[in-house]
Amino acid sequence: MAEDSTTTEPPALAVDVAALTEVLDGHYAEIRRTVRTLLPAYASVLEDAEEMSRADFRERVKEVVLEIAGTGSAAMGFPEEYGGGGDIGASIAAFETLAYGDLSVLVKVGVQFGLFGGALLQLGTQRHHDAYLADVVSGRLLGCFAMTETGHGSNVQALGTVATYDPATAEFVVTTPTEDAGKDYIGNAAAHARVAVVFAQLEVGGERHGVHALVVPLRDEAGAPLPGVRIGDDGAKMGLNGVDNGRIWFDGVRVPREALLNRFADVTEDGTYVSDIESPGRRFFTMLGTLVQGRVSVGAAGVSAAKVALTIAVRYALQRRQFETGTGDEGEEQLLLDYGLHQRRLLPRVARTYALHFAQQVLASRLHDVFSGITTDEESRRLLESRAAGTKALATWLATDVIQECREACGGAGYLAVNRFAALKADTDVFTTFEGDNHVLLQLVGKGLLTDYASDFSDLDQLGMVRFVAGLAVDTVLERSRAHQLLEQIRDVLPGGGDSWDTDSGLRDPSYHLAMFRFREEHRIGGVARRLKSGVDAGMNAGEVFSRVQDHVIAAARAHVERLVLEAFVDQVEALDDGEVKATLNAVCDLYALSEIEADAAWFIEHGRLGVQRSKAITREVGDLCRRLRPVARELVDGFAVPDALLRAPALVGGQA
Amino acid sequence: MAEDSTTTEPPALAVDVAALTEVLDGHYAEIRRTVRTLLPAYASVLEDAEEMSRADFRERVKEVVLEIAGTGSAAMGFPEEYGGGGDIGASIAAFETLAYGDLSVLVKVGVQFGLFGGALLQLGTQRHHDAYLADVVSGRLLGCFAMTETGHGSNVQALGTVATYDPATAEFVVTTPTEDAGKDYIGNAAAHARVAVVFAQLEVGGERHGVHALVVPLRDEAGAPLPGVRIGDDGAKMGLNGVDNGRIWFDGVRVPREALLNRFADVTEDGTYVSDIESPGRRFFTMLGTLVQGRVSVGAAGVSAAKVALTIAVRYALQRRQFETGTGDEGEEQLLLDYGLHQRRLLPRVARTYALHFAQQVLASRLHDVFSGITTDEESRRLLESRAAGTKALATWLATDVIQECREACGGAGYLAVNRFAALKADTDVFTTFEGDNHVLLQLVGKGLLTDYASDFSDLDQLGMVRFVAGLAVDTVLERSRAHQLLEQIRDVLPGGGDSWDTDSGLRDPSYHLAMFRFREEHRIGGVARRLKSGVDAGMNAGEVFSRVQDHVIAAARAHVERLVLEAFVDQVEALDDGEVKATLNAVCDLYALSEIEADAAWFIEHGRLGVQRSKAITREVGDLCRRLRPVARELVDGFAVPDALLRAPALVGGQA
Repeated sequence: MAEDSTTTEPPALAVDVAALTEVLDGHYAEIRRTVRTLLPAYASVLEDAEEMSRADFRERVKEVVLEIAGTGSAAMGFPEEYGGGGDIGASIAAFETLAYGDLSVLVKVGVQFGLFGGALLQLGTQRHHDAYLADVVSGRLLGCFAMTETGHGSNVQALGTVATYDPATAEFVVTTPTEDAGKDYIGNAAAHARVAVVFAQLEVGGERHGVHALVVPLRDEAGAPLPGVRIGDDGAKMGLNGVDNGRIWFDGVRVPREALLNRFADVTEDGTYVSDIESPGRRFFTMLGTLVQGRVSVGAAGVSAAKVALTIAVRYALQRRQFETGTGDEGEEQLLLDYGLHQRRLLPRVARTYALHFAQQVLASRLHDVFSGITTDEESRRLLESRAAGTKALATWLATDVIQECREACGGAGYLAVNRFAALKADTDVFTTFEGDNHVLLQLVGKGLLTDYASDFSDLDQLGMVRFVAGLAVDTVLERSRAHQLLEQIRDVLPGGGDSWDTDSGLRDPSYHLAMFRFREEHRIGGVARRLKSGVDAGMNAGEVFSRVQDHVIAAARAHVERLVLEAFVDQVEALDDGEVKATLNAVCDLYALSEIEADAAWFIEHGRLGVQRSKAITREVGDLCRRLRPVARELVDGFAVPDALLRAPALVGGQA
Repeated sequence: MAEDSTTTEPPALAVDVAALTEVLDGHYAEIRRTVRTLLPAYASVLEDAEEMSRADFRERVKEVVLEIAGTGSAAMGFPEEYGGGGDIGASIAAFETLAYGDLSVLVKVGVQFGLFGGALLQLGTQRHHDAYLADVVSGRLLGCFAMTETGHGSNVQALGTVATYDPATAEFVVTTPTEDAGKDYIGNAAAHARVAVVFAQLEVGGERHGVHALVVPLRDEAGAPLPGVRIGDDGAKMGLNGVDNGRIWFDGVRVPREALLNRFADVTEDGTYVSDIESPGRRFFTMLGTLVQGRVSVGAAGVSAAKVALTIAVRYALQRRQFETGTGDEGEEQLLLDYGLHQRRLLPRVARTYALHFAQQVLASRLHDVFSGITTDEESRRLLESRAAGTKALATWLATDVIQECREACGGAGYLAVNRFAALKADTDVFTTFEGDNHVLLQLVGKGLLTDYASDFSDLDQLGMVRFVAGLAVDTVLERSRAHQLLEQIRDVLPGGGDSWDTDSGLRDPSYHLAMFRFREEHRIGGVARRLKSGVDAGMNAGEVFSRVQDHVIAAARAHVERLVLEAFVDQVEALDDGEVKATLNAVCDLYALSEIEADAAWFIEHGRLGVQRSKAITREVGDLCRRLRPVARELVDGFAVPDALLRAPALVGGQA
């Protein structure tokens, strides 16, 4: 049955661009349209990025950020009483759309409104909101988010900066104890921030209480560093040179007690530390958790950058001809996209970008629900954090991969700055490591899976996780994993009544794809649990066990997130009314799912869920799907609705700009 | 037997850096040392690249190129009578070593001495040599190589520029017929070249004779374009902004008859076209073939760039600590390279870089032999061209992949320009598409394999290839393929006497690796032949057949080149005396071979040459090899002998600079 699907040729696809855009825009179509209308006015920033000196470009980007702040599009997520839009979901949609333009502008928006403003909003209380938020939203007060240090990036709990409470003056004394504990890579720090939210080890009465955040002024009105504050410039970066990243060292800088962002913990005037959350680890992760919007935003930006690259590369492949066609028209060369290899290079990436787009929309809606108080349970919050971490990793790797392939697919033309790939590539490169290194993020996802988001999860470092899981039966780990339950459900609806779903299903049956993704996730999680147990049983220390099992943890986490992505896509397609859009997106979804299975075919074969003949059939099916989608390739990328003015390179993309 | 190899732990590895460097340096140790000694004086160019304006940086790079020309290191490949070194192999070794430094300098050296000078040397005759070479070698005459046009990159035979012979004045009239036929992306054209070697359709007496090269002056002594010459600037590029790439259009520019580079074809004064090579296609490919050194050089540069990136990333991973170790030392964090995943990310890439290094050395020595007249047969020349094309593709993709992974493995620090990844990534990006797009090059390799480098190979375009192969029996194609013969040989020496070599060999037996690589190559070629035949038999036109089979052609070509790479590595290791270096490189070679088999495991399983258990054992073995090589990781990268001054980033690499 399965292999038959390649021989019964379905009808040719056709689809309307506007209808695709409508589906992609979803609930937040209006704010997306607003930002798309706004962006062409700033298209010249794309040129400025390559022609201006770094200093001038930083000023230019600052101006644009302030102008955008003036339109209200940058602060959709803040409460209305401070001038915000009061809609978190809309703020993500706006940010995602802004990412079609220059990415220095985007990241500076992210630093000011997401990181700096977001920390004040989420970690501060009324006194901080009243003091700062209106000025943050309007752009009158520029600030930065000073967490990372030269010596500590991923392991934030081990930061070196110290804030010691002095009860004599009711002040905190902020100090950088070593050169290596200087804040580093801090956006807005080198030139524009007047204030910083500084993360430091809180010390009260000689006792350490873990990392907390405080508001620390950096510069006076004239822009000069305040006493005790030393600021360095990170200088030229691979990209994003419109953002002034810098370093900050504090030498006994005093701030009032009220500078502590005290939503989760406070220090009384007499020097008593108080917090409703007892465990320092959980307290810290609760604080971090409120900053999840940053990860959601970076993932969204990665998907948008991939869309821009694909729009350029697909349009180019539909106008560039190369070598003869062999169809008999002597001398006529063939369009690049009519070459099988070119289809194979671009179309599965279009499909994957659609998949990540829909996964981002689900994520953004969960974020909205949790942070708007629509869902209030602790579990939803933990699942959101895990989903945000995992989706950010996949979406930013997507950007790196797609932009690179698109650049190469445009040949030498792709290397010229005017065709956008240079900036796209350089600017997005850091996405895979900022707001959490992708591998570290997937490790967090893996821990959550293995411990079923245990309530003491946040306290578990990687070694704690090893010991925790090793103490459980493998079955327990698996039973706790939701993938297991999901797999049971899917077996019931698939042909063969359950056990032969992997051989009897049609290759284009979404239930088959889901079952494969779920099987992989469940099996990967079980494999990690088994390995952790056997390592500990064999007498290895927890660090060594973790080191050896680490790539399996990452693989399990990837499998989990990939399953969430597929579910988001399948759900989206199923919800559509029958018609051209549904038929097209069905094929796009099939291409995404089968490409992913194909890429991991060795694993599926090794684990008994893919026969050799079926594996070969999947490879053929991927080729067939590429040919099937070829006639709507232009519509698929135009559906992303990247404004023509932002594509630059009129020669490359068919005179659209 | 096979799986046992994982349980018998071999002795710990130790190795001397200098001894590794000696092996890597090989025959051309002296010129490599010379260039390594020279380079630190120009380390400041790396900073200039990010701090200077584009115009200033172009001038700076020009100065450095002229200074290097003064040392003689840039023109080792030219005859001694014109001031060259008279040693082609040495010229590649010098270029490869120069690639440790700024890559704008390197590429400008390549344009001047490789492309421009190389075309004069290889396509011209005595009169051109006498007229130009001494000035080219000294740098007194800067030139460019004007082949690519806006409208035609890969399909050079279809260039639009025309050179029409005018017997009345015994001149050629060079014309750009359409805007799209303007020369484009031409290095040295925007600012510095006074002369160009221009590729144009030669028209004599109303008849076209295909693409030929002529020397055409571009600028006067003061640098102003000559009458009829219009020059544009390609502007900002992703990288290599020290090279002035530009566009050139010709409006009836007249050059004397002697301007034709007439080694392979000439036009007599009365307007008669004469050539010893009858077929226009073969004539053209013969001309192109003489330019193979460019591809060898780009591949060499790709490997060098990968070495720089790995040196930085491995040293960083050996000083950066992150999270606790679990070994009991409270608070002590673990070195990045002691994490299993980090080993998995970096060490197989170190191994692959060693593999490509040795493959490049074999290639360079073949180039030397053919171009120094040591081997003179036509077949060696064709095999050289194929090997150069394929190695260039693999080596430049290696660079892209390795630099990206190393950047990510250095986190935010990797994003700062001071740590070299920014420039490495941006500068090398174009390597995958210049001097031949990698996919197009692999197609050429594939054609050669399928037609056994048939004497009329050069005349066959992709459609001719389809028809040619479709006309042969699959067995004929296979018998002609050398992989088949090689496979027969290897079966004789492997356990099981032949048929069970893929199950009975030890996983670390190089004969097993070779047999796997050769089997894959043979089977891939056979598969393409079968597909071509069945497509044509089914009545598809040749263009459609090619489009559908294209990715299989590329896969067959990759398999072929990968086999050549493994053979080069295995041969190199076998030639060493027993000892630490051999033991270490043996493990590195195993890691390269097994990582490659692991990456293609689905294919091997699908084609009956890898069982599921053995596939899993290979994955374990790769992990074991990473752990085994971990203690010598620093030595492995230090063996590349990248001068410390060029690593910049003292903080990142342990204060070496």
